[in-house]
Amino acid sequence: MPAFPRLAAYHALIAHARQTHLLSSAAAVLSWDQETGMPRGGGEHRSQQLSLLATLVHERTTDPRIADWIASCEADSELVASQEHSASLHGFRRDYDRATKLPAALVAELAQHESRAQQVWADARAASDFTRFRPVLERMVELQQARADCLRSASISRWDALAELSEPGMNAAELRSMFATLRPRLVTLRHNLDLEGRRPDDSFVKLEFDEGSQEQCVRAVVAAMGFDFERGRLDRSAHPFCTGSFGDVRLTTRFARDNVLDALGSTMHEGGHGLYEQGLDAAHMGTPLGEAVSLGIHESQSRLWENHVGRSRAFWQWARPVLRQHLGVSVDPFDSDSLFLASNVVQPSLIRVEADELTYDLHVMVRFELEQLLLEGDLAVRDLPTAWNQRYLEYLGVVVPDDRRGCLQDVHWSCGLFGYFPTYTLGNLYAAQFAAAARRSLPDLDSQMARGAFSALREWLRANVHVHGRRFQPEELCRRATGAPLSPEPFLSYLEAKLRAVYGCG
Amino acid sequence: MPAFPRLAAYHALIAHARQTHLLSSAAAVLSWDQETGMPRGGGEHRSQQLSLLATLVHERTTDPRIADWIASCEADSELVASQEHSASLHGFRRDYDRATKLPAALVAELAQHESRAQQVWADARAASDFTRFRPVLERMVELQQARADCLRSASISRWDALAELSEPGMNAAELRSMFATLRPRLVTLRHNLDLEGRRPDDSFVKLEFDEGSQEQCVRAVVAAMGFDFERGRLDRSAHPFCTGSFGDVRLTTRFARDNVLDALGSTMHEGGHGLYEQGLDAAHMGTPLGEAVSLGIHESQSRLWENHVGRSRAFWQWARPVLRQHLGVSVDPFDSDSLFLASNVVQPSLIRVEADELTYDLHVMVRFELEQLLLEGDLAVRDLPTAWNQRYLEYLGVVVPDDRRGCLQDVHWSCGLFGYFPTYTLGNLYAAQFAAAARRSLPDLDSQMARGAFSALREWLRANVHVHGRRFQPEELCRRATGAPLSPEPFLSYLEAKLRAVYGCG
Repeated sequence: MPAFPRLAAYHALIAHARQTHLLSSAAAVLSWDQETGMPRGGGEHRSQQLSLLATLVHERTTDPRIADWIASCEADSELVASQEHSASLHGFRRDYDRATKLPAALVAELAQHESRAQQVWADARAASDFTRFRPVLERMVELQQARADCLRSASISRWDALAELSEPGMNAAELRSMFATLRPRLVTLRHNLDLEGRRPDDSFVKLEFDEGSQEQCVRAVVAAMGFDFERGRLDRSAHPFCTGSFGDVRLTTRFARDNVLDALGSTMHEGGHGLYEQGLDAAHMGTPLGEAVSLGIHESQSRLWENHVGRSRAFWQWARPVLRQHLGVSVDPFDSDSLFLASNVVQPSLIRVEADELTYDLHVMVRFELEQLLLEGDLAVRDLPTAWNQRYLEYLGVVVPDDRRGCLQDVHWSCGLFGYFPTYTLGNLYAAQFAAAARRSLPDLDSQMARGAFSALREWLRANVHVHGRRFQPEELCRRATGAPLSPEPFLSYLEAKLRAVYGCG
Repeated sequence: MPAFPRLAAYHALIAHARQTHLLSSAAAVLSWDQETGMPRGGGEHRSQQLSLLATLVHERTTDPRIADWIASCEADSELVASQEHSASLHGFRRDYDRATKLPAALVAELAQHESRAQQVWADARAASDFTRFRPVLERMVELQQARADCLRSASISRWDALAELSEPGMNAAELRSMFATLRPRLVTLRHNLDLEGRRPDDSFVKLEFDEGSQEQCVRAVVAAMGFDFERGRLDRSAHPFCTGSFGDVRLTTRFARDNVLDALGSTMHEGGHGLYEQGLDAAHMGTPLGEAVSLGIHESQSRLWENHVGRSRAFWQWARPVLRQHLGVSVDPFDSDSLFLASNVVQPSLIRVEADELTYDLHVMVRFELEQLLLEGDLAVRDLPTAWNQRYLEYLGVVVPDDRRGCLQDVHWSCGLFGYFPTYTLGNLYAAQFAAAARRSLPDLDSQMARGAFSALREWLRANVHVHGRRFQPEELCRRATGAPLSPEPFLSYLEAKLRAVYGCG
């Protein structure tokens, strides 16, 4: 029993949420295992395990007692007056309202279909055969339409209903306006680099290094970032990801002999996600204040480490000797500045996760547009490859040679993640705005990074972002951390300044 | 709905059990993860996850509807007349009666304490510091006493009540009688080898090989045994084990630079367990007919492959070139016969899992006696190291230098496994009796093994043991497979013949 009977309902909410978190975090380990090491023969059984766990979690998150507990708390003026309790209650209310809109049968079917679809997707992608994936994607779109229809009121679109799950407050109209600002500035920047600039030498990128050496190298970098391996792991998977939180945070990455910068960028990216999860306040484990606030903010942490650190001149002053130590003498001909330049070459490409900072958001635009059409029934799944390829030609100027490098490249839709992709662009924008604010607080950040001292930056992020969990909505978190609402301007200014310098123009 | 309404209750039982199996198998993956890769920081949370899953499984296995379903089925004479349905019902009845005897709170506390105790044990063992383990073992003994008291009637001992969980029908009295036959024959055999025989050269054992090469080698052997890596994995852990079944069977093993035979034996041992799990009938997944019948029978499968195959002259004719391929030129001075001899040296030792076939069961006797004393309160946990060391001196003639090599060596008691150790001795006896029966069916077994052809033996085991699940009780399974009830004689005859040959006496 709590010391203050007044708080009994609040304590009941917390205890209930913590137990639910035990089940959802168990499911997260099973999903991690599925992607990193599960034998193929375990696939069907794993789908059923995950479906059952999703059902149990759904049963718990829709328990009618939650409504009573929340109502009791909301009626308690003293409790609501506490900023912490009020923020926590707001999270509980939001989660409960959302969960009760979905029927249990749909939740179970989604979980089972997601697990199965991921396995089919992996095979289809390996074979570059969209026809294999098509039937499960068709079913997935139907299920997501049903999900969106459960969640939305008549006045909002299916896409907005799903997007709200990833990013509270996000909607398609605002994103269209954001892309309307971004696209012309990015296209202009690219033209200027092409016309006035000189493409840096990136012959380093093509050097071959064995995967074991690359792994030692990226482990050293992510450890220097402050990722705590006593409370986390790093493994390999087809598509890098981060899962878990607090004492057990799991990153995955991937290696290719001829692309050490991809492994480095992917690992720093997932490491940024991992630092957020390790930086949450463990006192709030399993409750809203112990959860990441949004996927856009989550992505800001990964992109900040991947790009604002990993593609900075200062970082490479420290990282070059680290690479030399693990990768050997073939690094010798490259000084730190040439590695900095090589990591910033702009080259429109086929694969989003390999995209440079300039073209990345155009990849997101393609997906943003296509998933709206799919959800509204304005694009049939069978026509997806054609629609995808047309947009890649138009926005990025590249010809998609096969579906493996086209619409089969991302795992997301197979995982049921619709309305998710634009959080990557929001992440880029938040990252630039956070990085600019951190620089104002840490005027010698570059000299710190140049000697591999990342703790001041990490602690700035911890104090201004991680530790708050869902205490503030994304826009308020951004305002508190940076003094301004989210804007594309810091991102565009940063990118224009850096790339013009990299390309030696004006 | 089933086609025959008569079978509705039976189908309800099956469906319920399959869902329960989804949860228990999910917990098995989390336990595997805890032993193979979980970051240390995840320990406390993992304990709570496993405790909750154990509670949910317990709630499901004690669901009162099960009693109704079973009663409906048992009242159906036609259903009971079917051998398959009757065996399945017998299993359901046994599991339900057992589960309903344990209060949910005790089940949850056991699960949580087991997870925690394993972590404390691992640290205590690494530090060879029994005082660290003592408080959690004391609590474990209390919990096991409580568990036994829930399960037993007044006429049976605590130890018998727990032993019945591992081996239906096993009791301390029969085991004492079995040990009374075994011990003098084993002691006599050892004296004869000492007096009349010549200890084979085992200098091969001390050669050093890197762990990567050893791993390639044991993977090749376990694949040749027929372990299906599309439906299983092999990883490393402090204490080798096997978990999972059907399409996802996970073995672990361990490597030491200077003991390749230990890695080989451990892996073949766990591989034998794994073949049993892969050989169960998937049509019965999650129900009694899709489960191993007892731990003694399970152990017979591991010991058969470890000893009757892996320590046979014929096996080494095939295995020697395999070792040569993976371990390199330092194998050259050793022919297959010398490897056979080296793998059969008798040497009383401190560590059960490294014991030779002759002294192994004396290690089991020590534990069998001590856990009876602990459960009855006739031995205090604080006095365990002394009691352990005294028995090692008396039964094995060895002085225990520290607790790491003494009473901290086994994971079992930290996992709550009391009444379990004697299943190892039963496994040795069953293995010898199965191997003798298989040899009668497969007269050219030695020539098959000498060329690495293990499929006939594996299929004999599959047909006579694996596929039956819990269809027959252990003693009936033994009688059907071998034509006789379990007896120590086949084991003693096999061992006397082999070791006298190895030591060149008579």
